[in-house]
Amino acid sequence: MRDMLKVGVNGYGVIGRRVSDAVRLQKDMELVGVVKRTPDYRAFTATSKGIPVYASDPATKEKLAGAGLRVAGTMDDLLTQVDVMVDASPEGKGEENIKLYEGAGVKAIFQGGEEHAISGMSFVAQCNYEDAVGRRFVRVVSCNTTGLCRTLKAMDDELGVEEAMATLVRRSTDPDDSSKGPIDSIVPDPLELPSHHADDVRCVLPKMNLVTMAVKVPATHMHVHALALRVRRPEPAAALEAIQRTDRLLLVEGKRGFKATSNVIDYARELGRPRNDLYETAIWKESVKAQGGWLFLFQAVHQEAIVVPENVDAIRAVTGASSRESSMRATDESLGIVPPAKP
Amino acid sequence: MRDMLKVGVNGYGVIGRRVSDAVRLQKDMELVGVVKRTPDYRAFTATSKGIPVYASDPATKEKLAGAGLRVAGTMDDLLTQVDVMVDASPEGKGEENIKLYEGAGVKAIFQGGEEHAISGMSFVAQCNYEDAVGRRFVRVVSCNTTGLCRTLKAMDDELGVEEAMATLVRRSTDPDDSSKGPIDSIVPDPLELPSHHADDVRCVLPKMNLVTMAVKVPATHMHVHALALRVRRPEPAAALEAIQRTDRLLLVEGKRGFKATSNVIDYARELGRPRNDLYETAIWKESVKAQGGWLFLFQAVHQEAIVVPENVDAIRAVTGASSRESSMRATDESLGIVPPAKP
Amino acid sequence: MRDMLKVGVNGYGVIGRRVSDAVRLQKDMELVGVVKRTPDYRAFTATSKGIPVYASDPATKEKLAGAGLRVAGTMDDLLTQVDVMVDASPEGKGEENIKLYEGAGVKAIFQGGEEHAISGMSFVAQCNYEDAVGRRFVRVVSCNTTGLCRTLKAMDDELGVEEAMATLVRRSTDPDDSSKGPIDSIVPDPLELPSHHADDVRCVLPKMNLVTMAVKVPATHMHVHALALRVRRPEPAAALEAIQRTDRLLLVEGKRGFKATSNVIDYARELGRPRNDLYETAIWKESVKAQGGWLFLFQAVHQEAIVVPENVDAIRAVTGASSRESSMRATDESLGIVPPAKP
Amino acid sequence: MRDMLKVGVNGYGVIGRRVSDAVRLQKDMELVGVVKRTPDYRAFTATSKGIPVYASDPATKEKLAGAGLRVAGTMDDLLTQVDVMVDASPEGKGEENIKLYEGAGVKAIFQGGEEHAISGMSFVAQCNYEDAVGRRFVRVVSCNTTGLCRTLKAMDDELGVEEAMATLVRRSTDPDDSSKGPIDSIVPDPLELPSHHADDVRCVLPKMNLVTMAVKVPATHMHVHALALRVRRPEPAAALEAIQRTDRLLLVEGKRGFKATSNVIDYARELGRPRNDLYETAIWKESVKAQGGWLFLFQAVHQEAIVVPENVDAIRAVTGASSRESSMRATDESLGIVPPAKP
Repeated sequence: MRDMLKVGVNGYGVIGRRVSDAVRLQKDMELVGVVKRTPDYRAFTATSKGIPVYASDPATKEKLAGAGLRVAGTMDDLLTQVDVMVDASPEGKGEENIKLYEGAGVKAIFQGGEEHAISGMSFVAQCNYEDAVGRRFVRVVSCNTTGLCRTLKAMDDELGVEEAMATLVRRSTDPDDSSKGPIDSIVPDPLELPSHHADDVRCVLPKMNLVTMAVKVPATHMHVHALALRVRRPEPAAALEAIQRTDRLLLVEGKRGFKATSNVIDYARELGRPRNDLYETAIWKESVKAQGGWLFLFQAVHQEAIVVPENVDAIRAVTGASSRESSMRATDESLGIVPPAKP
Repeated sequence: MRDMLKVGVNGYGVIGRRVSDAVRLQKDMELVGVVKRTPDYRAFTATSKGIPVYASDPATKEKLAGAGLRVAGTMDDLLTQVDVMVDASPEGKGEENIKLYEGAGVKAIFQGGEEHAISGMSFVAQCNYEDAVGRRFVRVVSCNTTGLCRTLKAMDDELGVEEAMATLVRRSTDPDDSSKGPIDSIVPDPLELPSHHADDVRCVLPKMNLVTMAVKVPATHMHVHALALRVRRPEPAAALEAIQRTDRLLLVEGKRGFKATSNVIDYARELGRPRNDLYETAIWKESVKAQGGWLFLFQAVHQEAIVVPENVDAIRAVTGASSRESSMRATDESLGIVPPAKP
Repeated sequence: MRDMLKVGVNGYGVIGRRVSDAVRLQKDMELVGVVKRTPDYRAFTATSKGIPVYASDPATKEKLAGAGLRVAGTMDDLLTQVDVMVDASPEGKGEENIKLYEGAGVKAIFQGGEEHAISGMSFVAQCNYEDAVGRRFVRVVSCNTTGLCRTLKAMDDELGVEEAMATLVRRSTDPDDSSKGPIDSIVPDPLELPSHHADDVRCVLPKMNLVTMAVKVPATHMHVHALALRVRRPEPAAALEAIQRTDRLLLVEGKRGFKATSNVIDYARELGRPRNDLYETAIWKESVKAQGGWLFLFQAVHQEAIVVPENVDAIRAVTGASSRESSMRATDESLGIVPPAKP
Repeated sequence: MRDMLKVGVNGYGVIGRRVSDAVRLQKDMELVGVVKRTPDYRAFTATSKGIPVYASDPATKEKLAGAGLRVAGTMDDLLTQVDVMVDASPEGKGEENIKLYEGAGVKAIFQGGEEHAISGMSFVAQCNYEDAVGRRFVRVVSCNTTGLCRTLKAMDDELGVEEAMATLVRRSTDPDDSSKGPIDSIVPDPLELPSHHADDVRCVLPKMNLVTMAVKVPATHMHVHALALRVRRPEPAAALEAIQRTDRLLLVEGKRGFKATSNVIDYARELGRPRNDLYETAIWKESVKAQGGWLFLFQAVHQEAIVVPENVDAIRAVTGASSRESSMRATDESLGIVPPAKP
């Protein structure tokens, strides 16, 4: 009988909470604990679900315990018990934390808020799982990059992408944040063009001839990407078939009520997904059209959820526990991801 | 062994979907089917969950079937199989539908969008369950009224409410709607003061000396009520104890991260609630204060979810199937509602 | 001494109000009156500014007068007194109205909500003023189309545009509307790609090889366009110079505080513009960059204001009153439009 | 002939810009200059309007000059030339600045972001102008407090206010800010009840028996106050007459299109007000109703503009230059404030 992979999660915010629950759903993984810094409702619901909560350091341990939270120990204690840490700490903290992971001899998965250089390997399961196998450190790319890579890879395989343009209409903050805006404003961000997102895609798909532009808007739920792909075979029917055959891509139809991102999230609610999470990239069927050698499409990316399956797969990849295919299948089944159509 | 209550739900929008799932969780009820009018994703997820979908009429049946939806029959077919219909059709449609229910000899539960006169009985479980027992028709009051009634009843029982003022800061539309606004505007609604909400409360609590005012704001998730209660015993400690002892009231604390409605909804997500539903009225602990004979508090009401337990209890009430206490306990347990503290 | 052009404006909404005031600022024009349908504050401020208000028909005249509004007559009366009517009535009403204008023998300017076919001539002053000279009917194109045409023409003249892509991130409704949404949702609109905006641009610039995509977002103030232009000379410095030399284009800089559309509108406020109107297309300096043969830029379009100078110029064009250059100069001076840099 | 009052303004943000322009409109005042810290578009439009811009200190002077801005000197230079400084610097900075003003021997007007203690005198022109006469330092109260004081004073004078409750539905940030939220959330703020606003009102109207509660919502344009006043004479007709007779109160009617704050701001646009400023408190006519000894009303407060006339009057008060009546009349005429009805 195989040993369980022992996993810790550092940070219990937007990503950490989701990865923790996803790890608990895997038959080959055990969530040893999560690391928290503040005694908020998130921490208390974690312990009430039976998740051991560790403090980031001794001083924090006292603070958490003083607030009445059951604390299992400090991060140092957690590090002695795990094979892999998922670093879901605030953007940019990974550079500090990597030293701790190295010192403890544990492998680690970082998020897209860190630089590619932190691990030298940027991960999207269906694009480059194999490159991550056996590595000590891997970086799961950001939500936008993950969404772009999945679709670009599928379209490139099927139609041959020679050139790609993407405009990212980004949600500005997450639904549980009431401090950040904008209210009633559109923010070109970054202002200098093109945006860095294309470079980040090339950390995963090195040859992708892509240019990106991005604006932030007053919404909390999803990013929308407007894609234009110059392809060798500008055939929408072939594109639609490829989308249906590709794991973690989901076709949605305007005529079935998917008018906006609010419907896509509502659909995740209807599916009974925890925290209304949509792990798939949603592509609007009506939008997939061709003209003048270009193929067009609109897709929506749930920024809180899309990287959750990637984190799970990355854990398996670094430990060499599974092949890509078996890992993705296990992840998908556990999360209720709609299986792709058979070719 | 007792027979199952056979329940149908007319309408599968914001309320209908939730009541349907809640009925399916009751050990003493069977959801015979739901009535739909459009072949949207909501209809397809219903059938994929195994819920029989009935068309409102023969023409609609053809439309739904033509879209590829598995249709179990028409509303007329459904009506022959149920003991109780929950009418969750669009506001104001109840008056038409009641004739169908009468004709079919089934009992019916209406929603707060209908007038009190439709049934002559306006229902909030913990206020007047007994008055509904054995009635043919009952109206569950609106989300705002339900939220006000629960709190006012608890405060009146404990502290003696002599006069009450409530300002309702209302969400403007539901999260799955992308057509209605406002964007960046505050709308006094109704403009004429005071608002009708107080009269609606008095359909449930006839002697409540309450005045209400309401504005709509650009939010989709919850209503916030600012309450001022002139009470005989203006004691915040007693109020807090009463809140903790009262079913379907939930204390939340700013210092535990509950800064805004977005955190209250996020908490429902963390609890694993389906569709992030908060059935309880959330009251901010820090807000419960007294001054000059008045007691103050802020509460938040999840407009999509708060009436779901009331609908379930109303079904039991009209059929005479349970006492208030046993119905509420069964409902609460099935929905994961946090049980109240013991006195 | 030349006669004044006698102008009427049918409709006093977002566009009608602004064109009325702009006409009043022209030394060669007289605003004979405006046509209103409802006795709202807009009507009363019109009469208080000395603008004669005409009712659309006799029944409306009674309604307006009954509300205490000073009514100068009906539209029929107005039509006998004017040379040109500006049709600023609700989208799609132009087709009815054109018969009235024809019957009365007056020339008319329509807005972009009407089809190109209504007049057979779609107008942007700096692109095709001459084609409108002497015509009976002219259609000023929509705000988005106007903004695209100005920039595309300037870039084509300077750099040679071979192919163009534009993603339009559109405000969803105007600041004085509190009914339309979305709140917290991003709406691909139209869902089918590419969008119609490119075709509309080709009504003005027939050879422009442009593709457009559009989404609606929860904002009221401006549209943002993300443009990618494949040009013969991908030289940002030349592009910037051309922008500075081109009338009705305005460079704004992020480092001077222009971070978002809210700053661009605020700048119009600081300039003392009536109703914070920005008649110019604002282009972010930092965004103008080139890569791989493409030139990129972000621009912002004030949907309420950008077509105001075009309407004024169109009036002169159809009456043959001025050359393009002298009309544009007169319009710009009267509206305080920043004059372009000398070459 | 009387000497002009020489005025400086420290800060050129939301309030400073407006007060500067208002000072320039006064026949008895001269704006000597404004103090800026960053070379943004606001600074450049100031100099282009002929307003001398001073740097806060020598280092800032270099920074501003380096950005190409014409700088007239530093704040120290400005202080030697003025009689009165209006301190419109960021909230809480007044405490530092007061030492500079004292050292320079100039009088100063502070804003509501400072504590009452900074000057010991909190000012609303129509409530306590006389108390400010001849003082060295005066604090104009915040936008919410100003709006409450004007209405409460008028209602108390006319109807006798024995008890008052106000719920403040506050805009969350100003229109030119794209960083602050919330997006799609309602924030009780402060969470502890009642809010501090009532205490601030009592700095102006010491005997006012008022309680306040406040929430923040995703809007940028106005605050809405829901007021309930227990009065000796609960007569709406008398209240309406008093409102019409009271300076700087403005009745607006829903039936004339004033459905929401967006219409109130739009009305300011139609009036041709600079920066769409509404200096008056807008009260909805339909909302003024009585029941059970209480009088109710909804009012809207333009947070950017309402304190502008108060600052102008405060300048005259501290210099002893005018009586209340003559100052308010001069201020109102210069700003285009609608004159109150004659009794």
